[in-house]
Amino acid sequence: MYWEKVDSVASLKSLRLSELNAYAAEVREHIIATVEKNGGHLSSNLGSVELTIGLHYVFDCPNDKIVFDVGHQAYTHKIITGRRDRFDTLRISGGLSGFPKMSESDCDAFTVGHSSTSLSVALGLARARELRGDDCRIVAVIGDGALTGGLANEAINDIGASGVPMLIVLNDNTMSISRNVGAISKYLARLRLSKRYSRFKSAVKKGVSAMPFFGRKLMRFLDKTKDSVKSALLVNKMFENYGIQYYGPFDGHNIAEMVDIFRQVKHEKRPVLVHVITNKGKGLYEAERDPSRFHGLSSEQEKQTKSIGFSQLVGNKLIELAERDPRVVAITAAMADGTGLKAFAARYPTRCFDVGIAEEHAVTMAAGLAAGKMKPYFAVYSTFLQRGFDQVLHDVCINDLPVTLLIDRAGVCGADGVTHQGVFDLSYLNVLPNMTVLSPRDGEELLAMLEFSLTYEHPLAIRYPKSFTTVYGAEPFALDWPTVRVGKDAVILAVGNRMLDVAMQTKATVVNARCVKPLDTALLDTLNRPGQLLITLEDNVRAGGFGESVLAYLNRVGMHCSVEVSAHETKFIEDMSVDGALQASGLTAEHINEVIAQFYSKK
Amino acid sequence: MYWEKVDSVASLKSLRLSELNAYAAEVREHIIATVEKNGGHLSSNLGSVELTIGLHYVFDCPNDKIVFDVGHQAYTHKIITGRRDRFDTLRISGGLSGFPKMSESDCDAFTVGHSSTSLSVALGLARARELRGDDCRIVAVIGDGALTGGLANEAINDIGASGVPMLIVLNDNTMSISRNVGAISKYLARLRLSKRYSRFKSAVKKGVSAMPFFGRKLMRFLDKTKDSVKSALLVNKMFENYGIQYYGPFDGHNIAEMVDIFRQVKHEKRPVLVHVITNKGKGLYEAERDPSRFHGLSSEQEKQTKSIGFSQLVGNKLIELAERDPRVVAITAAMADGTGLKAFAARYPTRCFDVGIAEEHAVTMAAGLAAGKMKPYFAVYSTFLQRGFDQVLHDVCINDLPVTLLIDRAGVCGADGVTHQGVFDLSYLNVLPNMTVLSPRDGEELLAMLEFSLTYEHPLAIRYPKSFTTVYGAEPFALDWPTVRVGKDAVILAVGNRMLDVAMQTKATVVNARCVKPLDTALLDTLNRPGQLLITLEDNVRAGGFGESVLAYLNRVGMHCSVEVSAHETKFIEDMSVDGALQASGLTAEHINEVIAQFYSKK
Repeated sequence: MYWEKVDSVASLKSLRLSELNAYAAEVREHIIATVEKNGGHLSSNLGSVELTIGLHYVFDCPNDKIVFDVGHQAYTHKIITGRRDRFDTLRISGGLSGFPKMSESDCDAFTVGHSSTSLSVALGLARARELRGDDCRIVAVIGDGALTGGLANEAINDIGASGVPMLIVLNDNTMSISRNVGAISKYLARLRLSKRYSRFKSAVKKGVSAMPFFGRKLMRFLDKTKDSVKSALLVNKMFENYGIQYYGPFDGHNIAEMVDIFRQVKHEKRPVLVHVITNKGKGLYEAERDPSRFHGLSSEQEKQTKSIGFSQLVGNKLIELAERDPRVVAITAAMADGTGLKAFAARYPTRCFDVGIAEEHAVTMAAGLAAGKMKPYFAVYSTFLQRGFDQVLHDVCINDLPVTLLIDRAGVCGADGVTHQGVFDLSYLNVLPNMTVLSPRDGEELLAMLEFSLTYEHPLAIRYPKSFTTVYGAEPFALDWPTVRVGKDAVILAVGNRMLDVAMQTKATVVNARCVKPLDTALLDTLNRPGQLLITLEDNVRAGGFGESVLAYLNRVGMHCSVEVSAHETKFIEDMSVDGALQASGLTAEHINEVIAQFYSKK
Repeated sequence: MYWEKVDSVASLKSLRLSELNAYAAEVREHIIATVEKNGGHLSSNLGSVELTIGLHYVFDCPNDKIVFDVGHQAYTHKIITGRRDRFDTLRISGGLSGFPKMSESDCDAFTVGHSSTSLSVALGLARARELRGDDCRIVAVIGDGALTGGLANEAINDIGASGVPMLIVLNDNTMSISRNVGAISKYLARLRLSKRYSRFKSAVKKGVSAMPFFGRKLMRFLDKTKDSVKSALLVNKMFENYGIQYYGPFDGHNIAEMVDIFRQVKHEKRPVLVHVITNKGKGLYEAERDPSRFHGLSSEQEKQTKSIGFSQLVGNKLIELAERDPRVVAITAAMADGTGLKAFAARYPTRCFDVGIAEEHAVTMAAGLAAGKMKPYFAVYSTFLQRGFDQVLHDVCINDLPVTLLIDRAGVCGADGVTHQGVFDLSYLNVLPNMTVLSPRDGEELLAMLEFSLTYEHPLAIRYPKSFTTVYGAEPFALDWPTVRVGKDAVILAVGNRMLDVAMQTKATVVNARCVKPLDTALLDTLNRPGQLLITLEDNVRAGGFGESVLAYLNRVGMHCSVEVSAHETKFIEDMSVDGALQASGLTAEHINEVIAQFYSKK
């Protein structure tokens, strides 16, 4: 059992090269077992086991820096670099983060969770090393999907021009580039004859046949490989044009080959790219068959509480809208699954645009579609829409175009942790002129909002969290705030289903503040009377959020009531559970009851 | 005089091909005369005269859509499409915008001011046309500089994969790509032998020798051309790899050649790129010699009032800091001139990084430098930092890294108009945990802030407007709010030099709220007494800005004083003069005096 032997980079290096395959198999088993229990990113982590072992066998962390892109593929890295014994706490409050994190280990060169940052970070680290005269190596590990992000392209341009030595490992699992490339099959014929391709093909065959239950998938795997090689050639030209030395493609599941190439390029004095072909989800039969389904797994607990989610509702409703209105089109940035657009894409392939990991382009392209008299819907996670902030402002809002943003995973996100918290959107959307911001109390209201969006000819954002809970019953939708329940003492202005759930557990009057921007000032005016306590509730940071905008309005017209803003502090939220994070911020019925009691006891 | 004859696309088309050169010469004269008076972008507009005439001679606006990138090169387009007689109102309040603007003309296919959006917009328009079955052509005109932006790369990836017919005109004026390319000279030798290059070279020679006072610059021009051809080849491979048909390079100052190629590609049923070589600043001796200096010109009025600006002070001080501390490095996104970094780049070439038009990469690369124990300063215009919002949040702030953002052109921007207003930064920076935000009252305090930054090991932003006015005298810098003048009645909390200038013209007590985040809560506590009026003054929108954060703090601890938030309404500001915009928002001494008088008369 090599698993017991390896708990550091040094102990990994004490294994013989011939022992690494057996170690990899054990790592793979542990990853599968842990992700099945705790949730997490399975496919990409299974695809990078050998590659990561190879890197750590050759490089010396923490002196050498390995920067993982996105961080979807760092589990093996965590296991090797001192976190083996805590690996079963992955993605649990107080446990290991699912992503690299500087505060967790000095072997994590950079904290990450969003895509396409690794090349820029690595170039910064490499330039720092040059200027400081340090002796260390900088490695960026980036997937083919992350290469579609504009940030990565900006970095490549700079890396090539700078000539600063660094190693880029392109982990090409054929999931993204090959789909986006367009026709370059004329290159393929030439490449088939090349020595490199033959060598690779036989390596793949050998590797595949060595695995007991892989026989029948041989043909499919080789088909995939063909796609990879197509994209390989593209990447080849692309990188060499930019002045980056290209080596590849190599079999990313052959540890000996990995160790060999890493040793060869370790001392190069220029930017080098090593192109590695891997099989996303390798080693798990189901995952290998449908890697996008297994990209992110929910924990067992999450699975039990799932009913139909907001994402699914959005997807279904968009199909209905598209049937009725030929202007309706949908856009996703490589998240058709997560955002519920998969069925839409199948039903309307020419009206659904998956632009790759490219949120900025998604937003600006949507603005172009709207300028062309279409009705675009961009479904995107709250945290990733941050990437398109300027595009929403400059391209959508200045032109007052009818682009609808469907903001999924808004509010605290649970196990994905600090880099994925969707708690800034109300604030950064509040800043935008011409933007209307909605948040539904339940699935039914979400559908009503989508219905409303169809005839609303201005920028619109609808934000909702991952889950879907209580149904509060029908209420016609308009840009106002209905009173959900008349209670006593305080009035709670609650944004979105999570906060309404909290509010309904108190005895106070509950208002559904479904329109975050603009505010329902008519209602606020009626509530603005001496002795009245208003409590705003939002799953967002305080700064610039819903509560502060209510406060700003009331102060402007002359405040007579009292306002208590309840929101997350404007800090990064490390908690990896939704309930834990809400509790820590006092977004609970208990805390709100206390606030009410305290207010009225003072009076 | 063709100038008098042409005031629409139709009247341009009524000219004979042989008359277009003479028309171009007249357009060029008018552009030079107007920009010398009103300010504006001279070099890029002079470079695109013939190219634009060629486009309008072949395509039919407004049915066909021409999307200009950035909008630096749309003056000829404006002159042709019905705005000739108002061209002398360029960049004046109430006059023509310096950029394309949908509300100004239906020939302006998209409102723009920021770089690298045109390809995404054009793809959106083209997809809309396909789905609607419209009959129109979509053209994007993009410069080589804008191609370094990640957004443009994201779009190219999508355009190539989609195969949707559209025309991309790459206006390559050799200013940006060639510098960034790295060594591809091996290609050059091959290209020299090619027919296309010979033809182009002789066309250039003919063109150059036809111009009377251009003889002695022939060699220099041909040297430039060589660089262009180098980059041409790169672009060629790049685009064809992506599935976009490439034609070029062509001489962008040869109208007949332009008309010829546009006619040829007009009916192509796939994405096509026409690569055009132009000479930035063509026709103006000085501009052609130093195009980056003439990229943007100030109006005559601006020139008269100029003393040493904030940008210049920043540049000089950074050199001093760099001398003392080897960790200091500077970053610019193709704005070394505008942000005052030119001297720094000359003095410390290895410690100054111009990353091209790539704000996201600039921020993340800075984060990498900081993680590598350097002390990076990124100098950037407020409006362009919007591009790096997620990178500041995800890469700099989550990791609490000592990156300093030097935010130039903060507040209203004057003649550049709606797309360039720097009035959102206080709001979007306020949202960011770990971020400290400063704004100096004068140049002296700016220097003190930079001194402070050297030992401050967290994310830091310093924002300042274009100008530099009064000096208020020395005051040691700390994260607090000094009282600049004790006056009567109200207390004004003023952010930055512009607002302090306003405040000092009243009789009130004036506090220099130089630290916008965190607030000086100790001072606020002492001011928080019944009957006290606090007026916050900021050159930023209301939503989530300084005033609203003061209000939020006071409400939280229990508000006893009265707060009046003075800021721009959260709307887009169309006014093209600084004073006009401040006046419209009530950010004047007169208005503040009224507010004070009204408050105390009510009491």
